Amino acid sequence: MKEKLISEFLGTYFLVFAGTGAVVIDTMTKSLTHVGVAITFGLVVMALIYTFGHISGAHFNPAVTIGFLIHKDITKKEAVYYIFTQIIAGIAASLTLFPLFGNVASLGTTLPSGTWSQSFVLEFILTFFLMFVIFGAAVHGKAAKPFAGIAIGATVGLEAMFGGPISGASMNPARSIGPAIVSGTLQHLWVYIIATILGAMCAAIIYKLIDDTKRSEQHV
Amino acid sequence: MKEKLISEFLGTYFLVFAGTGAVVIDTMTKSLTHVGVAITFGLVVMALIYTFGHISGAHFNPAVTIGFLIHKDITKKEAVYYIFTQIIAGIAASLTLFPLFGNVASLGTTLPSGTWSQSFVLEFILTFFLMFVIFGAAVHGKAAKPFAGIAIGATVGLEAMFGGPISGASMNPARSIGPAIVSGTLQHLWVYIIATILGAMCAAIIYKLIDDTKRSEQHV
Amino acid sequence: MKEKLISEFLGTYFLVFAGTGAVVIDTMTKSLTHVGVAITFGLVVMALIYTFGHISGAHFNPAVTIGFLIHKDITKKEAVYYIFTQIIAGIAASLTLFPLFGNVASLGTTLPSGTWSQSFVLEFILTFFLMFVIFGAAVHGKAAKPFAGIAIGATVGLEAMFGGPISGASMNPARSIGPAIVSGTLQHLWVYIIATILGAMCAAIIYKLIDDTKRSEQHV
Amino acid sequence: MKEKLISEFLGTYFLVFAGTGAVVIDTMTKSLTHVGVAITFGLVVMALIYTFGHISGAHFNPAVTIGFLIHKDITKKEAVYYIFTQIIAGIAASLTLFPLFGNVASLGTTLPSGTWSQSFVLEFILTFFLMFVIFGAAVHGKAAKPFAGIAIGATVGLEAMFGGPISGASMNPARSIGPAIVSGTLQHLWVYIIATILGAMCAAIIYKLIDDTKRSEQHV
Repeated sequence: MKEKLISEFLGTYFLVFAGTGAVVIDTMTKSLTHVGVAITFGLVVMALIYTFGHISGAHFNPAVTIGFLIHKDITKKEAVYYIFTQIIAGIAASLTLFPLFGNVASLGTTLPSGTWSQSFVLEFILTFFLMFVIFGAAVHGKAAKPFAGIAIGATVGLEAMFGGPISGASMNPARSIGPAIVSGTLQHLWVYIIATILGAMCAAIIYKLIDDTKRSEQHV
Repeated sequence: MKEKLISEFLGTYFLVFAGTGAVVIDTMTKSLTHVGVAITFGLVVMALIYTFGHISGAHFNPAVTIGFLIHKDITKKEAVYYIFTQIIAGIAASLTLFPLFGNVASLGTTLPSGTWSQSFVLEFILTFFLMFVIFGAAVHGKAAKPFAGIAIGATVGLEAMFGGPISGASMNPARSIGPAIVSGTLQHLWVYIIATILGAMCAAIIYKLIDDTKRSEQHV
Repeated sequence: MKEKLISEFLGTYFLVFAGTGAVVIDTMTKSLTHVGVAITFGLVVMALIYTFGHISGAHFNPAVTIGFLIHKDITKKEAVYYIFTQIIAGIAASLTLFPLFGNVASLGTTLPSGTWSQSFVLEFILTFFLMFVIFGAAVHGKAAKPFAGIAIGATVGLEAMFGGPISGASMNPARSIGPAIVSGTLQHLWVYIIATILGAMCAAIIYKLIDDTKRSEQHV
Repeated sequence: MKEKLISEFLGTYFLVFAGTGAVVIDTMTKSLTHVGVAITFGLVVMALIYTFGHISGAHFNPAVTIGFLIHKDITKKEAVYYIFTQIIAGIAASLTLFPLFGNVASLGTTLPSGTWSQSFVLEFILTFFLMFVIFGAAVHGKAAKPFAGIAIGATVGLEAMFGGPISGASMNPARSIGPAIVSGTLQHLWVYIIATILGAMCAAIIYKLIDDTKRSEQHV
């Protein structure tokens, strides 16, 4: 358990540091462009899965942990520890960025560019498919599991690419909570917590239709 | 069969949602650039192959299903179910994008930027090579099959990159039918249905020259 | 042998069609940018290696074939057939692009942007490292061979990225001969034939210093 | 040992040639953009790991060699030879770029864009995570080791993407020493030597918390 929580802390810390750091530094320097920011998010998730996946499962995301909880891949107690660690790590990343770069771009806080309901629906769909890719590529019995890191990193990268300009493409409460709390930009934070968790939960439920492990039936 | 059709539905739905969503959101925000749209198409196909490939074969494309039918990898009945599911999924994706973003960029409908005959030839060649990469990387007996998702995603990405500005780089009737029907932009739709299917069919025929499975001879 | 030559033809054809097509279409539409053109070159090589590598070795490049000849991976007779096929395929690709798009950007002919000697040195170094990556990642006894396609595609992509603005980053006589002949732009063609072949030959010689197969000693 | 040092020389040479060459050529031609430069750095590291990793371990970086020394993966004597070779290779790469392109962009020397302390902290964090990804993805007993090249290349690419505009994202004393010495731009070189080595050393120490090999305890 100690190794798992250290891995979740370091992984979530670096995911939020690199991803929201990319938003901050692009705002400061106009060098990365939106394409560079999205590539950063995708690559960091992929790299971290190959670094920590065999230790903690590489969740780095409370919505993903809740998805795994519903699919009974993790115990309730472990899920609580994971989620707590992920949120602390996200806050720690924002607390590192703040003294380095100042409160630029609200430290990369996710905010709806249009209505909150538009971003709510988009975050729901983005997280639904992220969770589904995780189940299909990393959990399904016939999956080419070593390639899951590539598939999941690609999913985060492509969703950041097309969803980013509308909702910020959070897909991850820990990624949104850290910058929001440290920069004091809390007004739409609930969207990124509720929509992402609902998306991951729905994916866990729908995934049962094609699940080959039949784990859910065994445990109920 | 149920698992296969659910996989084809979800995969095609998300392919069209992400890909044409990228076109729509780039038109709205000018953030992705053409490079970002092409990367989105490539990554989503790669991610979905690792998610659903071991369940349905990850066609997500009526032209590809017809290519597999000619190569006798799928029965006629199954092919009909697959194609029907893919078309419905493409329409469903466009029906999701429309209330979210409005009828922007005709919901990502593919249209020739020059003459229709130029786009017809280009779509034929693009789909021919996509189908050939699928046979060579995922079907051939000596292929490094777990890497097929990377090869096929790369092919869609690179063809979207260089072919997109001319024809939209559809390579996929379901990807073109959904936005065309929902946005009512039907004038050139036939190009994207006929040229892509012909391209995949020719690939299936030419592939027999280097096929090592000799399946075609066995069945005829 | 028939399967090998068909593979070399189709692979080189599509490499030149996609790569120089990207140059042509970027010149016409200003959509891809240099970054998109370089990504196209890298991805097409990677995809084609996974499609044809297990059939023909996926050379698609006379300089690479000559490198393999020096390392005694291929017979002299086979090398002659390979090189002839690759050159014909490159010309065929340019003959397809010409009626589609006209003589835009000299059909993607490589030309030095500065002095010819600068491009000569650069092409030598680029092809030297491309050939070295091929030996190290695809031939060396301890290499993770299924990943060679990723490594080699990445090398072509990155060399196109940084070398393209100076020399066009050919690394491949067949890629340069096709557009040069069909568009009639022959003045600097010799640079792209001599420098690339010399680079690949030097790589084959230097590679013997770290070669674990000791094949060269056995045969001499 | 001879094979290892040849591999470290060629690998570091090409890493610095391609990476700092990309900076130089982008300054000259404005073609690559920062995104293209960062992609070049990531791809070249990935390609070189698959080319030389099975021979020398593919360090190409004195900070990484020191990290491996602390983790007792390499002897002191070997580490000294490695580091010497890497620095010579970096200088040789800059000595190749200088006559080709002139003293453009100080040959790609890394320089802080803001305060030196900001770049010091950033280089420390970037190298810490690079070293941690190396341990987690390439050394840990349960890692999917053949994928380490993808994870490590992705890390260099993403860190170059978001860190580049601030500190130049060196993460590697050899990459900074070569251009600094050959172009005579030595004023901030110490930042890129001290911060990166400290980052790699801290990663080696913190990694012991999740290390499954227990090598450190055995040897102490």
